[in-house]
Amino acid sequence: MRDLSVKINSLYLLDNLNALAQIGAIDGEGVTRLALSEADKLARHHLKNWMEELGLEVRIDQVGNIFGIRPGRTNSSPVMLGSHIDTVIGAGKLDGCYGVLAGLECVRALNEKKIETNRPIVVAAYTNEEGVRYQPGMLGSSAHVGILPVNKAMEIVGIDGSVFGKELERIGFAGTMPCGEIRPIVYLELHIEQGPVLDQEQIPLGVVDGVVGISWWEVTITGSANHAGTTPIEMRHDAGLSAAKMIILVRNIAISIGGNQRATCGMVKFHPNAINVIPGKSIFTVDLRNDNEELLGKAERMLGDYSRTVAQEDGVTIELKMLEKVPPVHFDEKVISVLEKASDALGIRFRRMVSGAGHDAQLMAGVCPAAMIFVPSLDGISHSPREFTSPESLALGANALLQALLDIMKINDVD
Amino acid sequence: MRDLSVKINSLYLLDNLNALAQIGAIDGEGVTRLALSEADKLARHHLKNWMEELGLEVRIDQVGNIFGIRPGRTNSSPVMLGSHIDTVIGAGKLDGCYGVLAGLECVRALNEKKIETNRPIVVAAYTNEEGVRYQPGMLGSSAHVGILPVNKAMEIVGIDGSVFGKELERIGFAGTMPCGEIRPIVYLELHIEQGPVLDQEQIPLGVVDGVVGISWWEVTITGSANHAGTTPIEMRHDAGLSAAKMIILVRNIAISIGGNQRATCGMVKFHPNAINVIPGKSIFTVDLRNDNEELLGKAERMLGDYSRTVAQEDGVTIELKMLEKVPPVHFDEKVISVLEKASDALGIRFRRMVSGAGHDAQLMAGVCPAAMIFVPSLDGISHSPREFTSPESLALGANALLQALLDIMKINDVD
Repeated sequence: MRDLSVKINSLYLLDNLNALAQIGAIDGEGVTRLALSEADKLARHHLKNWMEELGLEVRIDQVGNIFGIRPGRTNSSPVMLGSHIDTVIGAGKLDGCYGVLAGLECVRALNEKKIETNRPIVVAAYTNEEGVRYQPGMLGSSAHVGILPVNKAMEIVGIDGSVFGKELERIGFAGTMPCGEIRPIVYLELHIEQGPVLDQEQIPLGVVDGVVGISWWEVTITGSANHAGTTPIEMRHDAGLSAAKMIILVRNIAISIGGNQRATCGMVKFHPNAINVIPGKSIFTVDLRNDNEELLGKAERMLGDYSRTVAQEDGVTIELKMLEKVPPVHFDEKVISVLEKASDALGIRFRRMVSGAGHDAQLMAGVCPAAMIFVPSLDGISHSPREFTSPESLALGANALLQALLDIMKINDVD
Repeated sequence: MRDLSVKINSLYLLDNLNALAQIGAIDGEGVTRLALSEADKLARHHLKNWMEELGLEVRIDQVGNIFGIRPGRTNSSPVMLGSHIDTVIGAGKLDGCYGVLAGLECVRALNEKKIETNRPIVVAAYTNEEGVRYQPGMLGSSAHVGILPVNKAMEIVGIDGSVFGKELERIGFAGTMPCGEIRPIVYLELHIEQGPVLDQEQIPLGVVDGVVGISWWEVTITGSANHAGTTPIEMRHDAGLSAAKMIILVRNIAISIGGNQRATCGMVKFHPNAINVIPGKSIFTVDLRNDNEELLGKAERMLGDYSRTVAQEDGVTIELKMLEKVPPVHFDEKVISVLEKASDALGIRFRRMVSGAGHDAQLMAGVCPAAMIFVPSLDGISHSPREFTSPESLALGANALLQALLDIMKINDVD
């Protein structure tokens, strides 16, 4: 039996989103609330207060992850609803915050209906998801699942020269709880899509069944720098032209593999970069993504093949350097099915989709069944003050999260 | 009748080239002797001394151009042999200096044989040909021919914030002779090719019949910046990809027009230039050159056509901005013929060719019959410490210059 009368109060959700968006806001330039900054410190205190007002027990772990715990009837493993509240530079108000604050609204809805659950419910805000101030991103969830050792995290030096551990201490969020002490039985993360698919297809909800794997490359082409006026075309080894050929072939990787394959050249540099000199060297980056590990491997092989072809054609050398590799993550089918049923019960149209961006959920998926819900981003815009999702969509996503939570409590609890 | 026993002494030529190359030299980084620098001042004093030792009357004009005059039997218009002694950053020892010092060797050869000429001979060193410290390049010759007003030249601010007129005063080369007072009847300039053609074709001499026209463009492409992971390929407006297409089409301009057409994209920039963001904007430059003005116009129209095609295909906007336009220069056929006959008389194989780089001769061509001689540059390298021409080639070019000078004296002088 499903009780659809339990609903989140979207006014609280919107109010809290707006309140957080004031912290670190610059007029016309969005919100800049980098991890462990003064703004982040203030936002953390707001979050802690809201958690305590809802009767949650707040615990902080060694890397500053914040957990608000609503006790269950038993002391069994909790269900966790999480995301993050740090932002990029010039962010909108939704990325991360939406998932955390929607978690609080689920708790409020249960509190108001005085619904008790057997398992505890935990609302989590992970530290430094964005990875702007400290690399890597998803730092807090990485430490939580044990992939990033705590002592390593403490020593990370930020883009401003600050040291992670010292800043954590400074803002008063260096907790004592060992990382990973709270092990949920299920992890759910609600997030804006940060892409255009739901908005363009006019589908109000995405049930996210995985996160793409990422393969990052730096390509360096060496030709011969020469005078643009005196060097005949047939005597050139133009590293810029070879880069242009490669950029077009990189697009071709996505076209020929199709499906969810993405391939992007985002950065480029020519040397000596002078109007009247044939580029002797060019460097560009390649970002390959696919949720299918085999196809991602195929994309990588195509990149290698293309580079050998162009090197031979143009008489240049092409060197490929892998910068980063993250394998795809597949979420738990049982959890996905719970999300689909919740959407169905609420009469919300949804589609299954893959996340093209990274989220804390992909780390949590390594230690417990996990999945995500997406709501549409207007025009796919994110990491921008123009990031926007309608209040109706935000409420709808939060209600789907709440229904899924209730469902899981019924499925998994020993009632 | 041609007297082939009059020859330059290549030991003097090489010695003087090496002496100048010490001034402004940095170990392993070539010569940096920017116009009106301390190094340029010292090199100018060397040149002045050498001229005076050869019995030349040295005159300095208002922009610091140095003229060494060997009187003729009559006071009629002189024949001028010229080039420049300023350098780029990290230059070789030949660019410019070779033409000036070969001019001195022609004078020395005449002096030694006690040959008098009816017309005076002038060896000229023009100020700031390279245009590295002060824009425009070929500043001295532009002022000499009246294209650049002297008062404008005086106010030019250099890359180091210095003012041309003040620096000229400081180094003691602000002359009193009005610019353009010396009007030659013929101008000859001997130079290294700065391109690979003669070296690759193993031809010892180039008779230069013109200088290419130059058309410089800045191309700005505006698409949509978006997340590289979350934006499906078919929803992208990737300004970086459109730039790559354009760079390949720019090469195609040169291929399809053929002949002396050059087309180069030397500079590029993506925005925001991040590995995981689809470029929302790209900027690149186009350098088009041809010695045929009509074909250069055709190249420009092709650039426009291509940009409209790519804009439509990719759903981006492409804006073309002309940065500079210099029409082609055609040298004087009579002077060219003198150079060809001189080479023939010396038994030197030569080819006619067009200069792809700018030279003082192209400005002199506006006020008197002019032409140039090129000698091979090893691998076409120039503006580099690795710039190299064999001593034999250098002597051979200087002897061709000397023979042409003798020829002109016979043709034009009222003997």
